[in-house]
Amino acid sequence: MSHIAFIGLGNMGAPMALNLCKANYALRVFDLSAVALQTLADAGATVCDSAQQAVQDADYVITMLPASRHVEEVYLGAQGILPSIADHALIIDCSTIAPQTAQKVAQAANARGLSMLDAPVSGGTAGAQAGTLTFMLGGAVAELERARPVLSAMGKTIFHAGAVGAGQTAKICNNMLLGILMVGTAEALNLGVVNGLDPQVLSEIMKSSSGSNWALHHYNPYPGVMPSVPASRHYTGGFGVDLMRKDLGLAAESALANNAAIPLGELTRHLYTLHSQAGAGSLDFSSIIQRFNTALL
Amino acid sequence: MSHIAFIGLGNMGAPMALNLCKANYALRVFDLSAVALQTLADAGATVCDSAQQAVQDADYVITMLPASRHVEEVYLGAQGILPSIADHALIIDCSTIAPQTAQKVAQAANARGLSMLDAPVSGGTAGAQAGTLTFMLGGAVAELERARPVLSAMGKTIFHAGAVGAGQTAKICNNMLLGILMVGTAEALNLGVVNGLDPQVLSEIMKSSSGSNWALHHYNPYPGVMPSVPASRHYTGGFGVDLMRKDLGLAAESALANNAAIPLGELTRHLYTLHSQAGAGSLDFSSIIQRFNTALL
Amino acid sequence: MSHIAFIGLGNMGAPMALNLCKANYALRVFDLSAVALQTLADAGATVCDSAQQAVQDADYVITMLPASRHVEEVYLGAQGILPSIADHALIIDCSTIAPQTAQKVAQAANARGLSMLDAPVSGGTAGAQAGTLTFMLGGAVAELERARPVLSAMGKTIFHAGAVGAGQTAKICNNMLLGILMVGTAEALNLGVVNGLDPQVLSEIMKSSSGSNWALHHYNPYPGVMPSVPASRHYTGGFGVDLMRKDLGLAAESALANNAAIPLGELTRHLYTLHSQAGAGSLDFSSIIQRFNTALL
Amino acid sequence: MSHIAFIGLGNMGAPMALNLCKANYALRVFDLSAVALQTLADAGATVCDSAQQAVQDADYVITMLPASRHVEEVYLGAQGILPSIADHALIIDCSTIAPQTAQKVAQAANARGLSMLDAPVSGGTAGAQAGTLTFMLGGAVAELERARPVLSAMGKTIFHAGAVGAGQTAKICNNMLLGILMVGTAEALNLGVVNGLDPQVLSEIMKSSSGSNWALHHYNPYPGVMPSVPASRHYTGGFGVDLMRKDLGLAAESALANNAAIPLGELTRHLYTLHSQAGAGSLDFSSIIQRFNTALL
Repeated sequence: MSHIAFIGLGNMGAPMALNLCKANYALRVFDLSAVALQTLADAGATVCDSAQQAVQDADYVITMLPASRHVEEVYLGAQGILPSIADHALIIDCSTIAPQTAQKVAQAANARGLSMLDAPVSGGTAGAQAGTLTFMLGGAVAELERARPVLSAMGKTIFHAGAVGAGQTAKICNNMLLGILMVGTAEALNLGVVNGLDPQVLSEIMKSSSGSNWALHHYNPYPGVMPSVPASRHYTGGFGVDLMRKDLGLAAESALANNAAIPLGELTRHLYTLHSQAGAGSLDFSSIIQRFNTALL
Repeated sequence: MSHIAFIGLGNMGAPMALNLCKANYALRVFDLSAVALQTLADAGATVCDSAQQAVQDADYVITMLPASRHVEEVYLGAQGILPSIADHALIIDCSTIAPQTAQKVAQAANARGLSMLDAPVSGGTAGAQAGTLTFMLGGAVAELERARPVLSAMGKTIFHAGAVGAGQTAKICNNMLLGILMVGTAEALNLGVVNGLDPQVLSEIMKSSSGSNWALHHYNPYPGVMPSVPASRHYTGGFGVDLMRKDLGLAAESALANNAAIPLGELTRHLYTLHSQAGAGSLDFSSIIQRFNTALL
Repeated sequence: MSHIAFIGLGNMGAPMALNLCKANYALRVFDLSAVALQTLADAGATVCDSAQQAVQDADYVITMLPASRHVEEVYLGAQGILPSIADHALIIDCSTIAPQTAQKVAQAANARGLSMLDAPVSGGTAGAQAGTLTFMLGGAVAELERARPVLSAMGKTIFHAGAVGAGQTAKICNNMLLGILMVGTAEALNLGVVNGLDPQVLSEIMKSSSGSNWALHHYNPYPGVMPSVPASRHYTGGFGVDLMRKDLGLAAESALANNAAIPLGELTRHLYTLHSQAGAGSLDFSSIIQRFNTALL
Repeated sequence: MSHIAFIGLGNMGAPMALNLCKANYALRVFDLSAVALQTLADAGATVCDSAQQAVQDADYVITMLPASRHVEEVYLGAQGILPSIADHALIIDCSTIAPQTAQKVAQAANARGLSMLDAPVSGGTAGAQAGTLTFMLGGAVAELERARPVLSAMGKTIFHAGAVGAGQTAKICNNMLLGILMVGTAEALNLGVVNGLDPQVLSEIMKSSSGSNWALHHYNPYPGVMPSVPASRHYTGGFGVDLMRKDLGLAAESALANNAAIPLGELTRHLYTLHSQAGAGSLDFSSIIQRFNTALL
């Protein structure tokens, strides 16, 4: 089996790496958290002292990091791994970052004769654990095919969005739309409830009508309508308000750089910013409905 | 078979009435348009000289009118039909109007010993023609069951939203959400395109991800992505910008009356107002993407 | 001196009526609050048992009531005063209400041979006490001149906005703009502060530049910048959040009725609605800056 | 008299440089436009072949450039002037750019032993010609005093906003607020006009009331209300829509970098973006009222 270096073992990275272990890949891992490293060691991975050490002789280098600046630092920083990566290796960055950063790192990799794919995911921690993530890839088709067996061990759907950076752009567009859907769904449910409608009945009606969207089907923000979503456990778990703000910030940067107007996207970002400043930063992002109905606080 | 009076034979009313003819109901119809009356006459309906005449001896009185003021006028005006309706008849108003107006007419009907359902529809002219409309009903369960056979000749799904007026509230909430979905989808597609993505590829990705919504699945606003939608025929046909504005106005009135905050709903309404003022009032509502990308004008 | 009936002795009405007493008008007053009535009695006014009794033989009938429905009830309700007003009297409604309600009451007055002016005020309780209010009048010029001596005892500036209802429209437009100025000023000050600027220095700069506006000159929302404003006493006193919401709601109704787009006005209304729902309804409206900077809570 | 190098002779830079000539400073100037250079030559300035040549032996180096990237290029680029500036010179950048860029250039200058002030201006081309600009300065007090005589030849008010970069931040905050004032004023005037008010009368009322702001006093957006503003000459001249968008973009970047919420600021930016995309990019920014009232197109 191929050798894989995996750097970044957070809430998403750790279960992704574990799925690679289960698929019998030889894993060399690095993270700053000793706990995360131990989990992977227990699963058979080789723990390394540094990112540079992890990438030695790897056929694939996979990174899953919090933000643009971490990706830039890990690849291009003073202790960066780019010089240590083997000539035949394929780089796959699964972080959600700015497309411009993805392109910058890819150019530096190309200058060293290496190829890189940007491969952000959707599906959340549940999808990471179940191995059912969706990958949105930016890069050349040939590299995508080289990556497919490895990605298939972590997810079930692979989209080719376009050239390097296009995976990040697709992720950003999707998550901005998700934020809009969630706030819009919260507004519509609240408007119905203040007019005397049952939130469950209204949800069923809109699911079957032209208001149908992912939030109504999989992530209803009204407590009690769906049993197993964050709204029914006091908005714990799930996808945090501050993570949604980060993704909406990437959309805002992209719109600014391209003179694109995203009025609903920006208003959504500001509503989440006000929500976070009211103390809800670590709640699930469906808790935005609390802004509209304080009885749900 | 039951006798049905049908008043209001516009783009929605006419095909609905035709489906009742096909189901062998005895129809007495009235409208101000001679053309519309002739179409129904050709299908076997009895044309009447006035709304009052049409409702004589009817078992069901169905109205499909443009706005609150027309419904109020037809039932409660100087030439209103309420006094002429038979004691055993059931009133079904399929117009999309303010819940308060529905409640006002229903109270007047009750005072005369009559029952009324508010039964706005979704599905558009295509659904009206195919007999596949969705009905959102407000009123008592017993009346809903009395109405079911008649409604089933015009649609395939019947939701009971709650007491009188609840059908209108559900329709208003749904259509506000639809407006938000459409603008949000237009923003996301445009943001992707200005960053170099193919709108078809991005649409496929978001359909399979958490940005999934009715507009992406059935009504893509980007020209050429779906062959049979208004976006692919210069935004002709479909659901007009000014009709969307009307529905968003009903949501605004309802939010105002209840002190509910609908920030995305209102911003959507204003974007459609600006779009209409730029001359697009009669285009399909998916044309809002032209505001974001003037290359699509 | 002329006889004046004054109905509505709240935070605004009581000091206005007291100024009329000081100007030696013969006042007959009515309110539901015994405390308010006693205050006026101490100042020499005649306390009445009902509004109908107060207007007997009055040369001027002045009302200062909370909202449209109160004005409609006091003039046109079952116990309404319209039938009891003397034929030679002039009606002056100083309440802030919907222009349509002003027009409806004026028409009913006209039908009885009476004239009415809508005369909403700006200047707040401080202006009411000092007799420095600004009046925005709707009605005929001749009636305005008849009202001038009376109004001059309560305010120092009288604008003639146009026909009946125009006073209300002018007030609504002004207060919507005031809400926008306040939120915009709060955003700008907060943006400066998070970037390290001193709020006092930034306020001085913007007061002398093109960002200059009433809030910066008379009502700075940042605590400590101006010593005698609500921001420097924990946002107590002043013009309440819920009163601003009411005025923004009147603007929204007017825009809805006329298909006018007021995107900033509506977003401002929603921000105040969210602020009120977070518990700030009775704070001064400059407290909106707390939404942007929770350190100011 | 001191020697001054002046780089950037556009609509703002040229009249500023001319005022320095009038004040008898010895000017060495550079720009890419031969026409601009000739104008300054006629006024007695020494025309140089490059920016590097212009700064030789100068006591003050003044730059007035379109955007951040130009400032970075002129000072720090391959042909940058920083190495050529005399050790005793003071650098004054009057461009409106990102505070971060100002700080970056200032740090590079400091590393060379030079001091720099960021000194963006308000007052427009009219203020530049009349020598009545307002300067918003970032930097140390001692440098500000060194700059004062030179700045006084070009403007009449000098504010010290704080440390390096603070001048830019103050300008950004002010101009964001200006954009909000203008759109808010346009909404309020249009709402009054559609309700039958005269825009001149409504403007007078709001100028004397709590809606008072710079736009109403100096730059009314409604045609015909003020004789000498862009609104009364088909929105030509003045401060362009695309320049307002640039400044609102700087505010957006700053808010993004600091997690500040600027909901009205961002909605204003998007309205200007949509306005520009409708073809109005080179009109005066008060033309935004055309979006609300197409009769004004």
